[in-house]
Amino acid sequence: MQATLSENGAVLTLHSDDFRLRFHAIWLRDNAQDIETRAPGNGQRLIALRDIPAVTVMSAASIDGEVLSVTFAPEDKSVTFDLGWLKANAYDKADKPVSGWLSDDITPWDSSLQPNVPTGQYPALVQRGADYANWIDNVARYGFGKIEAAPVKEGALFDVVDLFGYVRETNYGKHFEVRTEVNPTNLAFTGLGLQAHTDNPYRDPVPSIQVLYCLESSAAGGENMVVDGFACARRLQKENPDYFDVLAEHCARFEYAGEEGVCLTSRRPMIELAPDGELIGVRFNNRSLAAVTDVPFEKMALWYAAYRRLGEIIDDPAMEVVFRLEPGEAFVVDNTRVLHARKAYSGIGKRWLQGCYADKDGLRSVRDALSRKRLEAAE
Amino acid sequence: MQATLSENGAVLTLHSDDFRLRFHAIWLRDNAQDIETRAPGNGQRLIALRDIPAVTVMSAASIDGEVLSVTFAPEDKSVTFDLGWLKANAYDKADKPVSGWLSDDITPWDSSLQPNVPTGQYPALVQRGADYANWIDNVARYGFGKIEAAPVKEGALFDVVDLFGYVRETNYGKHFEVRTEVNPTNLAFTGLGLQAHTDNPYRDPVPSIQVLYCLESSAAGGENMVVDGFACARRLQKENPDYFDVLAEHCARFEYAGEEGVCLTSRRPMIELAPDGELIGVRFNNRSLAAVTDVPFEKMALWYAAYRRLGEIIDDPAMEVVFRLEPGEAFVVDNTRVLHARKAYSGIGKRWLQGCYADKDGLRSVRDALSRKRLEAAE
Repeated sequence: MQATLSENGAVLTLHSDDFRLRFHAIWLRDNAQDIETRAPGNGQRLIALRDIPAVTVMSAASIDGEVLSVTFAPEDKSVTFDLGWLKANAYDKADKPVSGWLSDDITPWDSSLQPNVPTGQYPALVQRGADYANWIDNVARYGFGKIEAAPVKEGALFDVVDLFGYVRETNYGKHFEVRTEVNPTNLAFTGLGLQAHTDNPYRDPVPSIQVLYCLESSAAGGENMVVDGFACARRLQKENPDYFDVLAEHCARFEYAGEEGVCLTSRRPMIELAPDGELIGVRFNNRSLAAVTDVPFEKMALWYAAYRRLGEIIDDPAMEVVFRLEPGEAFVVDNTRVLHARKAYSGIGKRWLQGCYADKDGLRSVRDALSRKRLEAAE
Repeated sequence: MQATLSENGAVLTLHSDDFRLRFHAIWLRDNAQDIETRAPGNGQRLIALRDIPAVTVMSAASIDGEVLSVTFAPEDKSVTFDLGWLKANAYDKADKPVSGWLSDDITPWDSSLQPNVPTGQYPALVQRGADYANWIDNVARYGFGKIEAAPVKEGALFDVVDLFGYVRETNYGKHFEVRTEVNPTNLAFTGLGLQAHTDNPYRDPVPSIQVLYCLESSAAGGENMVVDGFACARRLQKENPDYFDVLAEHCARFEYAGEEGVCLTSRRPMIELAPDGELIGVRFNNRSLAAVTDVPFEKMALWYAAYRRLGEIIDDPAMEVVFRLEPGEAFVVDNTRVLHARKAYSGIGKRWLQGCYADKDGLRSVRDALSRKRLEAAE
């Protein structure tokens, strides 16, 4: 491995026989890991970009083993970089991202996942050992997970949230009750089956995790069904790229104003992409879709055809995974990605679930902290 | 006003001398407001798109006063639409949205707002009358607001959150303490001034509201400063559209792993746009910006130049509004838009604030529910 500077010192090239990686002086300087630039304790950057001269170049660079040493001018500041860190954080990539790409830590799925529903036993999960780490990984990877052998106890859903995060309280409360009731104010309380959907798309930010916890289940039917919205969006893209694009390029609108003093509205696309095309969210909910007014007239027929086809894919049994929640069982779902539904159930007997919302940042943080700990232990 | 159907019945045109609005049959059918399509109580849609025939056309249309009657085939279903509602929800627009556009309910600002800091007196706000409605409107419009004459009481910040929403608990707790302390684990606890920033950009979803509540303030200095990130982004766009675009088109990365068991990371652009270019978010925080690896090599120098210039605009006193929080005063800030900072303060004396996060959905819901109530009262 060799390090070569460009003539003006603005670019450093790491190269060997089989590869070449270029780095700008300003990027290297801003990402220096020395104790004057980064706080040793918490890793926060101690300086702002305004503290680095606008015209920063490199006056020297050399490699010794796995360490690159660089001197920046005009600061005359020398710092070292681990070559492994530089390779892991390289931005000199040949590939351009394609629309609809997914992060490596996500695996899209369809009904073939049925025999392998990510499941954790509650008594093992609370030990926070290998089973816990594995379940957390799977929930992040597949966007949902089941918990079994948990207590049949009101409020126990909060103990599930404690496994990875914090409750997102809303106007529905810290939690909400889902029961078979007469004269419902919300469709979730009736005995009818529901089309698979994401919850609360009219909320921005949308709750990114939902937990449903079963306390009573003597009624026949009422199975829970989940569908991977990312897999559905990608199938739509494969079938008809124009359908995918029109749903991603225009905002839908969602609304819920079903209670006194509440008027929740959002303006977001059904298929949400990052600026570089990463698929990062799906919103799908026929009940709360408002009049869509941000699709130009010329594209509205296409948008509706795409919305219809996405719904058909979501309804296709080939995409669904079904499981039944018994008392003391719960499921956790990534509400930005995985749609959920309840099959119809009979009025004979009762069904009682408690639900609440939480956020994904905690889940991902736990996963990544555990993963770093394993890496450090292995070093 | 006249209603004309296209030959195949797929498009209805409302027209008079001075305007023309077209609507597709499928859009009108999906947005029918009859009691079989929409629940009268809560307004939720009772049917899914799959319940509407794919080839839906109109067989008749007529206008009587302010009401349009339409018959859909093959369902042979007749519904009525209020013409005012149709005009308000029309999507047949001539204008194409421009990159960086802002919603009408947002007013960008700079230091000229200084004499008119949106301020509410706590005793009046809790009455939930006109002062309250006005303050809520202003916080939504300007992205921040001050509260005065509130009790000097630990935990009173939760009463401020109760005015519009719910606390977003995080790994920092339901709330966090901001004091002058030695050996800080987070820069917010030191006496140094901070560059204006948004909080927790490493969290996804980011907390969209922050509340800071002052309990003690005998140290000199330590004023709070706010900057409108939307105004800064638009100034950047005006100065150099390429700068604006490069920050909007590529994701930055943010990270915080400063505590045992915590590893929060996000991948989001500094300037966030909706698919149609609406400016919907700004993330700016030098301390938690991680190595940026999603900007192609060819654009990295431009990205850093844009990031530097955005920081210079943010640091420009012409953009800032400054106020001092005395004990029993608080401020609420839209953390997806308005950056905040603390000026340096002296070590002599003490400063003690309590802070917490919440979300914007509640604030916007309260605003819109109050606004609809006023409209209904006026009818």
